[in-house]
Amino acid sequence: MSGGRVATETDIASAASSRRYTENAPYVHKVGVPPKQSLFKEFTYMFKETFFHDDPLRPFKDQPRSRKLLLGIQAVFPILDWGRRYKLHMFKGDLIAGLTIASLCIPQDIGYAKLANLDPQFGLYSSFVPPLIYAIMGSSRDIAIGPVAVVSLLLGSLVQNEIDPKHKPEYQRLMFTATFFAGVTQFVLGFFRLGFLIDFLSHAAVVGFMAGAAITISLQQLKGLLGVKKFTKKTDIVSVMRSVWTNVHHGWNWETVVIGVSFLAFLLLAKYIGKKNRKLFWVPAIAPLISVIISTFFVFITHADKKGVQIVNHIERGINPPSVHKIHFTGSYVGIGFRIGAIAGMIGLTEAVAIGRTFAAMKDYHLDGNKEMVALGTMNVIGSMTSCYVATGSFSRSAVNYMAGCNTAVSNIVMSIVVLLTLELITPLFKYTPNTILASIIISAVVGLFDYEAMILIWKIDKFDFVACMGAFFGVVFASVEIGLLIAVAISFAKILLQVTRPRTAVLGKIPRTTVYRNIQQYPEATKVPGVLIVRVDSAIYFSNSNYIRERILRLLADEEEEQKANERPRIQYLIVEMSPVTDIDTSGIHALEDLYKNLQKRDVQLVLANPGQIVLDKLHTSDFANTVGDDKIFLTVADAVMTLAPKMEP
Amino acid sequence: MSGGRVATETDIASAASSRRYTENAPYVHKVGVPPKQSLFKEFTYMFKETFFHDDPLRPFKDQPRSRKLLLGIQAVFPILDWGRRYKLHMFKGDLIAGLTIASLCIPQDIGYAKLANLDPQFGLYSSFVPPLIYAIMGSSRDIAIGPVAVVSLLLGSLVQNEIDPKHKPEYQRLMFTATFFAGVTQFVLGFFRLGFLIDFLSHAAVVGFMAGAAITISLQQLKGLLGVKKFTKKTDIVSVMRSVWTNVHHGWNWETVVIGVSFLAFLLLAKYIGKKNRKLFWVPAIAPLISVIISTFFVFITHADKKGVQIVNHIERGINPPSVHKIHFTGSYVGIGFRIGAIAGMIGLTEAVAIGRTFAAMKDYHLDGNKEMVALGTMNVIGSMTSCYVATGSFSRSAVNYMAGCNTAVSNIVMSIVVLLTLELITPLFKYTPNTILASIIISAVVGLFDYEAMILIWKIDKFDFVACMGAFFGVVFASVEIGLLIAVAISFAKILLQVTRPRTAVLGKIPRTTVYRNIQQYPEATKVPGVLIVRVDSAIYFSNSNYIRERILRLLADEEEEQKANERPRIQYLIVEMSPVTDIDTSGIHALEDLYKNLQKRDVQLVLANPGQIVLDKLHTSDFANTVGDDKIFLTVADAVMTLAPKMEP
Repeated sequence: MSGGRVATETDIASAASSRRYTENAPYVHKVGVPPKQSLFKEFTYMFKETFFHDDPLRPFKDQPRSRKLLLGIQAVFPILDWGRRYKLHMFKGDLIAGLTIASLCIPQDIGYAKLANLDPQFGLYSSFVPPLIYAIMGSSRDIAIGPVAVVSLLLGSLVQNEIDPKHKPEYQRLMFTATFFAGVTQFVLGFFRLGFLIDFLSHAAVVGFMAGAAITISLQQLKGLLGVKKFTKKTDIVSVMRSVWTNVHHGWNWETVVIGVSFLAFLLLAKYIGKKNRKLFWVPAIAPLISVIISTFFVFITHADKKGVQIVNHIERGINPPSVHKIHFTGSYVGIGFRIGAIAGMIGLTEAVAIGRTFAAMKDYHLDGNKEMVALGTMNVIGSMTSCYVATGSFSRSAVNYMAGCNTAVSNIVMSIVVLLTLELITPLFKYTPNTILASIIISAVVGLFDYEAMILIWKIDKFDFVACMGAFFGVVFASVEIGLLIAVAISFAKILLQVTRPRTAVLGKIPRTTVYRNIQQYPEATKVPGVLIVRVDSAIYFSNSNYIRERILRLLADEEEEQKANERPRIQYLIVEMSPVTDIDTSGIHALEDLYKNLQKRDVQLVLANPGQIVLDKLHTSDFANTVGDDKIFLTVADAVMTLAPKMEP
Repeated sequence: MSGGRVATETDIASAASSRRYTENAPYVHKVGVPPKQSLFKEFTYMFKETFFHDDPLRPFKDQPRSRKLLLGIQAVFPILDWGRRYKLHMFKGDLIAGLTIASLCIPQDIGYAKLANLDPQFGLYSSFVPPLIYAIMGSSRDIAIGPVAVVSLLLGSLVQNEIDPKHKPEYQRLMFTATFFAGVTQFVLGFFRLGFLIDFLSHAAVVGFMAGAAITISLQQLKGLLGVKKFTKKTDIVSVMRSVWTNVHHGWNWETVVIGVSFLAFLLLAKYIGKKNRKLFWVPAIAPLISVIISTFFVFITHADKKGVQIVNHIERGINPPSVHKIHFTGSYVGIGFRIGAIAGMIGLTEAVAIGRTFAAMKDYHLDGNKEMVALGTMNVIGSMTSCYVATGSFSRSAVNYMAGCNTAVSNIVMSIVVLLTLELITPLFKYTPNTILASIIISAVVGLFDYEAMILIWKIDKFDFVACMGAFFGVVFASVEIGLLIAVAISFAKILLQVTRPRTAVLGKIPRTTVYRNIQQYPEATKVPGVLIVRVDSAIYFSNSNYIRERILRLLADEEEEQKANERPRIQYLIVEMSPVTDIDTSGIHALEDLYKNLQKRDVQLVLANPGQIVLDKLHTSDFANTVGDDKIFLTVADAVMTLAPKMEP
């Protein structure tokens, strides 16, 4: 940046004055041939932009070593930084927020654990240890850590493909293995600053995926909500619906349905109230706990469980037992665990990072995505050794956390303490909690994931995105979670490739009363210059599109010549290629330009280049193509080119 | 194109006159809000550009039906088109060319067949049927069809991984199956106009791959050249060299070495002469046949074969036997055959299409890549049913064909007739031909594939390309042909993704005495406007880079503000984003802009957009972001923006 000297008054004036010069003798500024970049500089630049674009070392710049060390430690454990500045008044907000999300997370955790085919206590375990780790290492102030619906579903379906959940010990072992590798994946991505990889899961794809997951999860809950005994293992809508209807006559348990549906109605109402009046955000937040308490009490006194209402029955008492010995570090399950873990880890990241970014933007503090990933990774690795399964940031709970006025990660600590107490003291009270309540809690929790407004917006803005979105959605709903993911990623990539394979080109015309040349389709008032065809190429010229671009330009020329013949206009003598958008060019691109040049030579049309960028110009010179075209045929702007060439044209 | 009305005299003059207006009251042209594109039009445009960008149906436009039919048939069988215009004087050139390439191809075919672990006659078969088919369906006038070194090597190594060449019948069956599917692949790619897919094999990658193949092939020839009996099946340089040196004492046959090396010297000399003096192109062309004749005669009289000089011994007499019944249409080999065929077919295409394009450009006639693929595909499918293995265009022979003055595909017909006669009459004469000659012929044929000049140029122009090139090269040389290919493709893709993930951004300054704003790194004389930061984003804004771009811009702003504080400049009040290169934007991109906007609001900096393109502007409006920013903050050019905003700035 410091390259540019700052404008003096006269310079500022020159916006006008420049015109005066050019009045009589048009002033043409020559194209800047940049100083040749050294290979090393080029490389380091690219490397920096790829991995360290957010310049994480900036605060370390010119600091004494001791300070650097301190900063380094603080970078790994942000708590040391904000902890020192923590004030009591902050604690009030954190306490309230912590209690609120605790009351929300306890019933959710139990439900999500079932979603992952695990015993309820594992859900609670995962809301105890991970939040503590995150509080120490994470830098987001608003995220609420714990198990989430989508990841639970994903893990549940992936792991049960390998091992039947009935074989609890084996199933748990694989689950912990997957969790371990999920953590490792997250850590590695963050540590090697590959965080940008998750950006490849486009917003549209995520929206579709989440919506699909919401549907799938809700469908899964029909088991609990209707009290169906034998339920399909599959997650796709067809098989689920089949096993629902085949059970309609003898399979459903009406008591269960009544309890479940009525409380679902209550929860949705609470959610609606919370939406209508932001002040009442706590209503939907505590509604789940309330309904758990009421329903449990209700079942307890009515002995509804005798009438076939399924209940939680037993939650292991006490805090997380160690589980290092359960993780597979050798054998065939390592590979499987890694595959599952990697997927779950990635999904976990996209969710957590999205949340983190959103709230960081709201409260305007900086969040280093890669650092977050390291924190989340460490959290899950440790989690996997303390009987937790993959935890990450939860959309719903984070929102509540934010609205309850949390100030720091302390709210997570509060939450995990509450969970601790729950595990130690009151788990027995959940004995009579009916499963159907958990089902309705989960449903009411995931409806928010179905973001139809976002879908509509996507449709409006970008049809291709919408295809990706729908692909993910239907993939998840009709096939399986993995398929949905696969489709989403595939379409996202296809889009990128299509863009670089078939870039846009535009014919430019002069906008009246200016020296500006613009796309004549966008500015119908723009006029073509007789005898000159001005084409703009809207992309870097690479092997993937060089042939296309060459042929496209020649076709535009052919069209133009046809037209020109039709209405007796002067024949095309110059083809000006506006290269402003051409950010880069490779060997194939250079070859394409050379072919184009030869081809134009044959038709006695002069090739002219306008405003090639630094890198491009550099390569045009090294490849000696610049001399082929002739430096006098390379201009700073289209206007300059036209001004200079127009007089030379044969009548 | 027809959108733009044509400039009148006054318009032309206005390049100057516009200045006069703007002199007193700066004239600011408003940004054109394009007519909303209908979804259907959008889609059809994209579809057309993707699959029919070369507008193949143009000649059919407004023709009577009968004519259309005729054109259709001619499109499939170009011979009906050029055949009708074929003159006798053309035949002279074709005859000479045909005979020359025949004399070149016969010995090469025999050698290449060995490279594919097939009996010599299969090489000749493949130079008989395929050229005929191509002559009928192909549209290139210069390409010479037949088996080629690289594909032979590829097939040889891939098929022998599955079946030991010793089991001839089974080996042949798989070979024909692979050939069949190679043809199918080529046909399908062409028919569904997916030809652009082969563009993803970048020029750089191909250069590296070819060079590597040249080395590998030459190494393979050491077996024949040194008369080594037991030779490794592997193709990588390490194992080959090992089996060469382990055999040095007892394995080598000195008579063989003498014959081979001396003739190799002769062939290379001939090649050199041909290079030095283009008129003598026929010297290297007939040298192989001559050396075959001489060496065969020599062995015959000296009975060198008794002294361990390996000879061809036996070539099946007669033309191609049918082989439909040998192709696997069911069973486990179908999959394998398809995999191998697909790879070989793709490589064959890249070679053929590259050749076709090169010569078409030289003689300035149009070549429809997709039509070519259909022709080549049909050719190989039929070939697979007549005991041929994959044939394609050969670089060396096509060049000879061109220099020998061929006019049409008739030269191919001539060649295949000569091959026919060879098969019918003189195959027995090859009995005493020493294998070492074939080895030296192949070596002298493939040295040309090692194009070090191209490599140097690639290094000069694009370092990343060079990495791809070397990756392919070393992959082929040290691992295997497939690995080399894989590496090449992988790196090529990585490059594309990197480009769309980490686009360039530039800070713009005003070029003195103009109203033009350019990258201050390229134009150090350019001056920044106080209180304004002008940033150009050099890419479409997609999910893969939206976050990066947002953060990058904010970082540039931060740097600028630091600097501004340092040297007491007016504080930054406007951030102008020059969007000319931003060719498209998706939902993630819009979100990124919104975040950027919010963020700037907090810092009390105004976001200004300059020259958003048609599509982008469209989406800015549909997403309502245009209103958020305010239409008065969107300008046609940076100059307009500065001119309008400068006065409004607080001192």
